[in-house]
Amino acid sequence: MRGTIIVSKKGVKLKSPVMIEGLPGIGLVGKLATEHLIKELKAEKVAEVYSEHFPHQVLMLKKGTLRMLKNKFYAWKNPKKGGHDLLMLVGDVQAITPEAQFEVCNSILDYFGKMNGERIYTLGGYGVGKIVEDPRVLGSATHKEVVEELKKYGVVFGEANGSIIGAAGLLLGLGKIRRMNGACLMGETHGGYIDAKSAKSVLNVLTKILGISVDLNKLDQRVKETEKFMRRMEKEVEKQKGLGEGALKGDELSYIR
Amino acid sequence: MRGTIIVSKKGVKLKSPVMIEGLPGIGLVGKLATEHLIKELKAEKVAEVYSEHFPHQVLMLKKGTLRMLKNKFYAWKNPKKGGHDLLMLVGDVQAITPEAQFEVCNSILDYFGKMNGERIYTLGGYGVGKIVEDPRVLGSATHKEVVEELKKYGVVFGEANGSIIGAAGLLLGLGKIRRMNGACLMGETHGGYIDAKSAKSVLNVLTKILGISVDLNKLDQRVKETEKFMRRMEKEVEKQKGLGEGALKGDELSYIR
Amino acid sequence: MRGTIIVSKKGVKLKSPVMIEGLPGIGLVGKLATEHLIKELKAEKVAEVYSEHFPHQVLMLKKGTLRMLKNKFYAWKNPKKGGHDLLMLVGDVQAITPEAQFEVCNSILDYFGKMNGERIYTLGGYGVGKIVEDPRVLGSATHKEVVEELKKYGVVFGEANGSIIGAAGLLLGLGKIRRMNGACLMGETHGGYIDAKSAKSVLNVLTKILGISVDLNKLDQRVKETEKFMRRMEKEVEKQKGLGEGALKGDELSYIR
Amino acid sequence: MRGTIIVSKKGVKLKSPVMIEGLPGIGLVGKLATEHLIKELKAEKVAEVYSEHFPHQVLMLKKGTLRMLKNKFYAWKNPKKGGHDLLMLVGDVQAITPEAQFEVCNSILDYFGKMNGERIYTLGGYGVGKIVEDPRVLGSATHKEVVEELKKYGVVFGEANGSIIGAAGLLLGLGKIRRMNGACLMGETHGGYIDAKSAKSVLNVLTKILGISVDLNKLDQRVKETEKFMRRMEKEVEKQKGLGEGALKGDELSYIR
Repeated sequence: MRGTIIVSKKGVKLKSPVMIEGLPGIGLVGKLATEHLIKELKAEKVAEVYSEHFPHQVLMLKKGTLRMLKNKFYAWKNPKKGGHDLLMLVGDVQAITPEAQFEVCNSILDYFGKMNGERIYTLGGYGVGKIVEDPRVLGSATHKEVVEELKKYGVVFGEANGSIIGAAGLLLGLGKIRRMNGACLMGETHGGYIDAKSAKSVLNVLTKILGISVDLNKLDQRVKETEKFMRRMEKEVEKQKGLGEGALKGDELSYIR
Repeated sequence: MRGTIIVSKKGVKLKSPVMIEGLPGIGLVGKLATEHLIKELKAEKVAEVYSEHFPHQVLMLKKGTLRMLKNKFYAWKNPKKGGHDLLMLVGDVQAITPEAQFEVCNSILDYFGKMNGERIYTLGGYGVGKIVEDPRVLGSATHKEVVEELKKYGVVFGEANGSIIGAAGLLLGLGKIRRMNGACLMGETHGGYIDAKSAKSVLNVLTKILGISVDLNKLDQRVKETEKFMRRMEKEVEKQKGLGEGALKGDELSYIR
Repeated sequence: MRGTIIVSKKGVKLKSPVMIEGLPGIGLVGKLATEHLIKELKAEKVAEVYSEHFPHQVLMLKKGTLRMLKNKFYAWKNPKKGGHDLLMLVGDVQAITPEAQFEVCNSILDYFGKMNGERIYTLGGYGVGKIVEDPRVLGSATHKEVVEELKKYGVVFGEANGSIIGAAGLLLGLGKIRRMNGACLMGETHGGYIDAKSAKSVLNVLTKILGISVDLNKLDQRVKETEKFMRRMEKEVEKQKGLGEGALKGDELSYIR
Repeated sequence: MRGTIIVSKKGVKLKSPVMIEGLPGIGLVGKLATEHLIKELKAEKVAEVYSEHFPHQVLMLKKGTLRMLKNKFYAWKNPKKGGHDLLMLVGDVQAITPEAQFEVCNSILDYFGKMNGERIYTLGGYGVGKIVEDPRVLGSATHKEVVEELKKYGVVFGEANGSIIGAAGLLLGLGKIRRMNGACLMGETHGGYIDAKSAKSVLNVLTKILGISVDLNKLDQRVKETEKFMRRMEKEVEKQKGLGEGALKGDELSYIR
């Protein structure tokens, strides 16, 4: 492999699929929401995304095996006639530099484009720096038509300001150039902790938009395992940084700990 | 898209066009001047420049939509017989690393070359660290012949020293290798604030060189909106930096704020 | 040369080779073990790996000549009928960034793949921060089948946690995508010094797995020369860093010392 | 242009040319020596080297024109029958990262290879941290044969230790892979200032090796202009760094000063 590769199951065919992105981001709102959706819908893993832009390390698992850092696509076939299938993107990490983010996002859109997908929802948190009792879902869309469409489901447009950094923004920006469309749905959140309540708000709105029904009760249970995993990821990625900065110097020899 | 792409309107044809560059730089002199020129001439947007070297983020707009960071080309058809058309370049950002600047500037020159353009004026400020009552316009050109030609319009050559960093310099340096020619026109400026007076000086000289006439009265009004936009850009790009340096660590999870 | 190149002897043919990786890492356990194996088996150097991702410097040798930084492949023909040949990888440095590590590791796997190799053992240390009297060998494998197979030789699986950074991890992770398999064998070690005892433990287990016999007595003697060489490498690579950060500034002019 | 390009005069033909490299390095010994050689031999400029890896800025000259940063090749035709022609490399800067250095050096060797060149001398200083009354010339060569050959001219081999960073080392290391050969000739020098005496020592030995005669008297005069130019280069390159680190933030708007 060079660059970014997507290893896909053969023969995956989706019906006018909608992409849901939930990579790690603020309050892990998007990650929590998308992973919950995947589990509740019993979606099937259909592809893995590997990139030379992800950290050059493998994770050691409890069962004695190891695995590379990656992103993953899960597919769900909509049983409703005329309904959209779903293609859900989750993963360990996002690429860090602009060039890397552009490459990975373009590879993801290539894959989604081959599936004839057009509509993209990227999920995330919108940090407000304080605890929010009843988090609203703010939105920012690729086109005015999408704004009008989603307002009906209670998404608040025109209030979020600033920029959306990373895949949640770039998939939409790059998608628009490819004549795709969609919106970023952001649950209000404190920003300093993993926020299941915000993820619920986002899923509440998203499932209405998608016209599907999902039990949100178990979402709270996922918070702990997610937190634990992400703490570990942070720690491991930090180690690599330390190594990168002073490679070959005394303690950096410790590339396996 | 990979690398840098220029999405152009179809069928744009220009008559021996002259390129005017006004990307963000010292005192925002070049940006102010070029944007004013575009508005007063009612120039038409003919192309957008996207690059994997620009920050990986999208801007959220008040109307509820989002857009990628980009540079833009505006064209103006010169009604005078035998007069040069104008191709004006403005934008949110410049690329940061040498490799990125070279790629973006080369893409821009490719586009300009296809339009059969040869003459380039890059506009900027020349920081002197103090308030200048009556800012002169300093110049640095690709060829001696251009020096002689522009001296007649009051451009002061041989006084500016040091180097010109970024697109304002590289477009001329790379252009010269392609047998293009031109000059960087720099209005004297304090350097610490956005300087409409310096932009006026530059436009005064430039319009004489181009043999066109433009009302400069509204230029002052543009200062405030430009300042506001650039403060926001700075803030957003800073956020990304913070993220890049310590990605995945606690507060960096906040890639959407 | 561009990218990474492997300059190989012509006509090298190996019988179902097993790759052993021992590039610099924690406690230099993998390096010590692999170099000892190479010397005891009188293995033959069959290829050199050069990369634009290694530091841009050459080493001056006592005899008056200089040489580039590189990795090297040594081959050993197994005299046993049906036995696996060995392809051993050692070297001065590892690449530092993710993109560089991916490229170098992929080039290495290309070479190993052309030799029809499938099984990979990467050797390293597992830092525990204290002196270990009788270091165990911890493992992490690409597949469950490899876990079961290696447990029989005393490799402890499921205990090492965290991640494996660099070639020791990536060769296995990337190898798995290519349908190769193998394990990282890590000797417990303090982490703060070069550890011959840990290297012995690793070789003890590895030679049993490989079904070969190697005298481990001289391993201790190799510690001093290895330490001396690595101290020098660290110093030289540090100089380059200093240079890179402030190139052209006063003291950075000192790129030859 | 993309990557690195060499713009050469047409029809340049050299007779078994020897390359002399004198890019900026410790004590500017190599630069001083090579530039002096060029001037005394009245060598002709035959090519310019531009690279996307050089700083993205242009220098403003006193005469009102600007120019890109570059390296330059000068050629000298040896009037002696059977004598080697010379191809001398000097320039404003060296590339900074490993990948950039590899690319530029490979481009330079491509050019030299097309001229059927085989022998390379890279010139530099060897910092000893104190004033040297009568600087010796230390050497490090690609092959033992070259060591033996050059010893006869008083070059001291086997004493310099450590590594040679940058083009002075890489041209030889990469050249060796291409079956070229040569040596780095290093004049002992303090390291903290520009050293004409050390450059004289190097030229004394080099001209003997080449069998040519050059007046060394004017070398001292070149020290001042070289020092002035390099101080300016340092200052300009530093500015760009400041810009790169915090682009778009207040004072970084000052990309033209």
